[in-house]
Amino acid sequence: MTPVVGIVMGSNSDWPVMRAAAEALDEFGVGYEADVVSAHRMPTEMIAYGEQAAGRGIRVIIAGAGGAAHLPGMLASVTTLPVIGVPVPLKYLDGMDSLMSIVQMPAGVPVATVSIGGARNAGLLAARILASAPDEEGERLRAAMTDFQIELRDQAHAKGAALRAEVADTQHAE
Amino acid sequence: MTPVVGIVMGSNSDWPVMRAAAEALDEFGVGYEADVVSAHRMPTEMIAYGEQAAGRGIRVIIAGAGGAAHLPGMLASVTTLPVIGVPVPLKYLDGMDSLMSIVQMPAGVPVATVSIGGARNAGLLAARILASAPDEEGERLRAAMTDFQIELRDQAHAKGAALRAEVADTQHAE
Amino acid sequence: MTPVVGIVMGSNSDWPVMRAAAEALDEFGVGYEADVVSAHRMPTEMIAYGEQAAGRGIRVIIAGAGGAAHLPGMLASVTTLPVIGVPVPLKYLDGMDSLMSIVQMPAGVPVATVSIGGARNAGLLAARILASAPDEEGERLRAAMTDFQIELRDQAHAKGAALRAEVADTQHAE
Amino acid sequence: MTPVVGIVMGSNSDWPVMRAAAEALDEFGVGYEADVVSAHRMPTEMIAYGEQAAGRGIRVIIAGAGGAAHLPGMLASVTTLPVIGVPVPLKYLDGMDSLMSIVQMPAGVPVATVSIGGARNAGLLAARILASAPDEEGERLRAAMTDFQIELRDQAHAKGAALRAEVADTQHAE
Amino acid sequence: MTPVVGIVMGSNSDWPVMRAAAEALDEFGVGYEADVVSAHRMPTEMIAYGEQAAGRGIRVIIAGAGGAAHLPGMLASVTTLPVIGVPVPLKYLDGMDSLMSIVQMPAGVPVATVSIGGARNAGLLAARILASAPDEEGERLRAAMTDFQIELRDQAHAKGAALRAEVADTQHAE
Amino acid sequence: MTPVVGIVMGSNSDWPVMRAAAEALDEFGVGYEADVVSAHRMPTEMIAYGEQAAGRGIRVIIAGAGGAAHLPGMLASVTTLPVIGVPVPLKYLDGMDSLMSIVQMPAGVPVATVSIGGARNAGLLAARILASAPDEEGERLRAAMTDFQIELRDQAHAKGAALRAEVADTQHAE
Amino acid sequence: MTPVVGIVMGSNSDWPVMRAAAEALDEFGVGYEADVVSAHRMPTEMIAYGEQAAGRGIRVIIAGAGGAAHLPGMLASVTTLPVIGVPVPLKYLDGMDSLMSIVQMPAGVPVATVSIGGARNAGLLAARILASAPDEEGERLRAAMTDFQIELRDQAHAKGAALRAEVADTQHAE
Amino acid sequence: MTPVVGIVMGSNSDWPVMRAAAEALDEFGVGYEADVVSAHRMPTEMIAYGEQAAGRGIRVIIAGAGGAAHLPGMLASVTTLPVIGVPVPLKYLDGMDSLMSIVQMPAGVPVATVSIGGARNAGLLAARILASAPDEEGERLRAAMTDFQIELRDQAHAKGAALRAEVADTQHAE
Repeated sequence: MTPVVGIVMGSNSDWPVMRAAAEALDEFGVGYEADVVSAHRMPTEMIAYGEQAAGRGIRVIIAGAGGAAHLPGMLASVTTLPVIGVPVPLKYLDGMDSLMSIVQMPAGVPVATVSIGGARNAGLLAARILASAPDEEGERLRAAMTDFQIELRDQAHAKGAALRAEVADTQHAE
Repeated sequence: MTPVVGIVMGSNSDWPVMRAAAEALDEFGVGYEADVVSAHRMPTEMIAYGEQAAGRGIRVIIAGAGGAAHLPGMLASVTTLPVIGVPVPLKYLDGMDSLMSIVQMPAGVPVATVSIGGARNAGLLAARILASAPDEEGERLRAAMTDFQIELRDQAHAKGAALRAEVADTQHAE
Repeated sequence: MTPVVGIVMGSNSDWPVMRAAAEALDEFGVGYEADVVSAHRMPTEMIAYGEQAAGRGIRVIIAGAGGAAHLPGMLASVTTLPVIGVPVPLKYLDGMDSLMSIVQMPAGVPVATVSIGGARNAGLLAARILASAPDEEGERLRAAMTDFQIELRDQAHAKGAALRAEVADTQHAE
Repeated sequence: MTPVVGIVMGSNSDWPVMRAAAEALDEFGVGYEADVVSAHRMPTEMIAYGEQAAGRGIRVIIAGAGGAAHLPGMLASVTTLPVIGVPVPLKYLDGMDSLMSIVQMPAGVPVATVSIGGARNAGLLAARILASAPDEEGERLRAAMTDFQIELRDQAHAKGAALRAEVADTQHAE
Repeated sequence: MTPVVGIVMGSNSDWPVMRAAAEALDEFGVGYEADVVSAHRMPTEMIAYGEQAAGRGIRVIIAGAGGAAHLPGMLASVTTLPVIGVPVPLKYLDGMDSLMSIVQMPAGVPVATVSIGGARNAGLLAARILASAPDEEGERLRAAMTDFQIELRDQAHAKGAALRAEVADTQHAE
Repeated sequence: MTPVVGIVMGSNSDWPVMRAAAEALDEFGVGYEADVVSAHRMPTEMIAYGEQAAGRGIRVIIAGAGGAAHLPGMLASVTTLPVIGVPVPLKYLDGMDSLMSIVQMPAGVPVATVSIGGARNAGLLAARILASAPDEEGERLRAAMTDFQIELRDQAHAKGAALRAEVADTQHAE
Repeated sequence: MTPVVGIVMGSNSDWPVMRAAAEALDEFGVGYEADVVSAHRMPTEMIAYGEQAAGRGIRVIIAGAGGAAHLPGMLASVTTLPVIGVPVPLKYLDGMDSLMSIVQMPAGVPVATVSIGGARNAGLLAARILASAPDEEGERLRAAMTDFQIELRDQAHAKGAALRAEVADTQHAE
Repeated sequence: MTPVVGIVMGSNSDWPVMRAAAEALDEFGVGYEADVVSAHRMPTEMIAYGEQAAGRGIRVIIAGAGGAAHLPGMLASVTTLPVIGVPVPLKYLDGMDSLMSIVQMPAGVPVATVSIGGARNAGLLAARILASAPDEEGERLRAAMTDFQIELRDQAHAKGAALRAEVADTQHAE
């Protein structure tokens, strides 16, 4: 599939967190690319990535970063695409530093921030963005998102049934 | 203009913060509607709003809320549209409670969170989302966003010139 | 026993935390039901649960949730029953996000919040609420709560005796 | 009216915050008493207050305190009544210290905590607790709470209408 | 030895943290007693403990508590003795709630707070307090404290020598 | 009066906060000295102050500092006297940085920390420490502290009476 | 004077905070330039600034930024010069977000961070860095820094004298 | 090599964190010494270390400390050298206390603070400071730092290639 979402991160050590974004896109049949684009270790290439993404057909960028997490905001400053930021938690501070560095962007340069470690939601948000477009693919994705939400609901129902059964067993046993 | 963005908030007392989203959309020529939709005071209508938004032509929802801010996440659970959350700061805690309540959504239901009080960026993010679509309006908005970014840059240049002049005056005066 | 307390949570994965509420109610001979009711995955059913709880004879709702924890507050908005919120700690932030999302409710819609992970206290608070009613069951529960508090005191006394003995041993050994 | 709710606080300087609890009870026609009961300045009387409250007909205690806020938890340890804690914000820390000191009670001694400065919700929670009782007063209060929630909803609707009108004016003016 | 320091805690499960206070007092030859005195589980006995401590010859109280940690402050309100508070860290929040509940006491009732989990320093602070008295025991303890500080310094010197040696080895090996 | 308490601070700009310690000591008839002793601006004199304080008859040191507040801990490292630390709040962070820098001392060097801005309690704690000594002055101070606590209680009673009267007026007026 | 320090910030609205850096450099006779260099509004020019600074004779960069403050870290990634970061406090969060975004840089790209709003210290740190060089200017600056520290000490002494006088007056007046 | 950087810490138990500073200096061929210098356990020697460092040829000091971390700031107050502070995380609070105690220095006495546990960056910052000097060693280090940054970039490129390969494998496998 032609990639329409770019998933980038500062190091391949972020992949265990970020792959959940890719998996969500796989579930929705959305093409993506994944790459290491480091704001601090390859700033020139990072800017080039942002500037060229739209031209290459990318429609949404998902960027994960931790600590003083500058990648999502810097990419947002060099592209017109929507950029989704994933605060990656590091060894200390539980990702609070990552969240602050990503979400508190100044007026003019928005980053769509998801929860700490929330790469799966980043993928789902990208799918929603693509689903909001008035084209066939958007229509397909809206339907798929509706199905996905029904499945979420059904899973929750099943969990409820399981819990009720477990509790009933306990109560009968008393 | 037909509204394609829905700007909602828990009370009209949030409007002084949230109007910056509307102003940004005005600058980009994007139609929007604004309404009070309270998760806690009118939950049934809130769910109806979310369920019907897409059918009425809304393509992006911007929801502002403060404290235990449930509106963005609840709307995201009843629509397939991308939902942008604006943490509105209340009297205490500087909006940290609002941010936590909006950004820390569970896997499955993403909210695109912007900075505390960052309604202008919510409007700009909505514009970017609309700009990512492969239609004429998307093309128009991409061009407008590029112009906007050039203007941001030029304003920054002008501020730099003003600062350099001010400092030069000080230094000559010494 | 006819359930008079409803214990609900977003997923059965919360049960290891939330079962402590059930155990406390068991100790007091208070009937309860337990179910998965997810604000984000089954919002319509969640609202129905809240709206119908009183009619089914439920007198107190205990709701546990983590992260952007909307379940307790949303239930409180669709019932007149007292709702007790249990902030469930997730992988990051030690439950601080859950606490903020539950306790910082806007004026008009109260949630009785207990400590992070404090499901046992949620059960005990439900018992106190039922005990405050001017009926026979209230009288029975008041007596049981008095006994419970005496037991707490006696256990603390026993722990003190054990500690004094341990320290005395150490001191004699010197 | 015979007081059934006791509203207590460490100092009368807390009254400007705590009176909102009294006002909520006034709206619901619930009798209350208000007093200064300081855990740190009159511990003996504080304990006596807690021990005797139920005997005097009090059914719910609302306790407000700030900083190292020990009043709600200490009262809860000497009564079987439900105790509602209101974290009163002091000059520094925005009430975060008050919240921690009230909500993080150990297993065995629950305090029903409301939001920082949330005395109005404390009053409403007390009304819900009384409304949960299976007596005539409970029935009266359940109906009143239903009316109150309808009024909240109607006010929100009115605010929405006002906001839509304001925005429409702006849009026509352009 | 006649106890002059009372070491108390809410449960004997706090002893693994609090014993460091006892060990410090052992090193200085200061007599102490240790007991479980729970503010929430045996409030009457807790107040009695505080009221009677001075009469029994206790000159300093060390109180450890976690979460909504009320023991140090409540004891301080019923004794004229200096009370040292040790914030015991619980499962969540790293002791930040314990610290807030102990250190933020209102004007009039001071608690001498040490670091999170800092029971050893509580013991040393008690020794300093006793050492500040103008009696023979005070003189003995001042001398002992001086020796202790010299030992701390010498240990630090030894650690420095060890580190320098380790680094020198590394550097020669290169 | 011969000073037995040394009140020191990093700058005379801290005096508006720290004078409350002096006032408390005045109320108890305890002699004190007050001085500017800056850990960062006059480290040599700061160390001399700490080393010589006991020799000059000082029995307790009260040190106030803000931000990276090193004065209390550094003084504690060069004296055997008990050192009381007052976290002075600066322009940002509400004194949280000051508190962390003062209370989190390493094992071996205790600082008796009071609340943020809590200079009055620092004075009262110094009085309690002096009151714990087995001399005539100690006896006098114990009696004075008992009187002080009675006065605190009586003031609280008076505040309660005032509040009850105010509330009664409101209730009759209805 | 030829500028050897570059003081940059995201907007001229940061100048009221950042000018304190310039004033410190003025006091030490160190030449500087000041400019607006925005990471988010002119990323290309920002990178050019960092890449060319050393070639233009700049030896230290001071960068101030607020919120999701990316400027110091991004400059550090495109220069070999030492970069000093000043966390500028914005309307909310007291600069905590700015601090996190500046200080928590990943291994490989250091930023020398000073206190929130601490631009004066940024200027003094730049002077210390220049003073550490083994050239004549370094020697001159070392001497100037020594004089500066003596002045700091003397000012503290003077403040102490003033405070002692004020307190003595109070004490005599009693 | 003659040491030009002094790496000091409060205890040799900090060496596992602090050795990363030494390793960075080794990579750049910069001579250093490492020692235990405790602000609280050997204050006199600590001051002597700071006062004598420049005279012994040290040009930059790196100081690591945890909790109420006073070492970096105290050294900065007795030397004219640039002092780099490394917040060492302790058992609780994830190094937030260490960071506050180091970075929030008062105007006049700067500490160049790096990230929590960021000793490697402290070493790199020292290298940048030495590289900024206008001597041959500075020139050598500037070139080395340029090479280092190229290597960082190349490693990031390699990681990107590895990630792209891994993802491509996954995608083909589907």
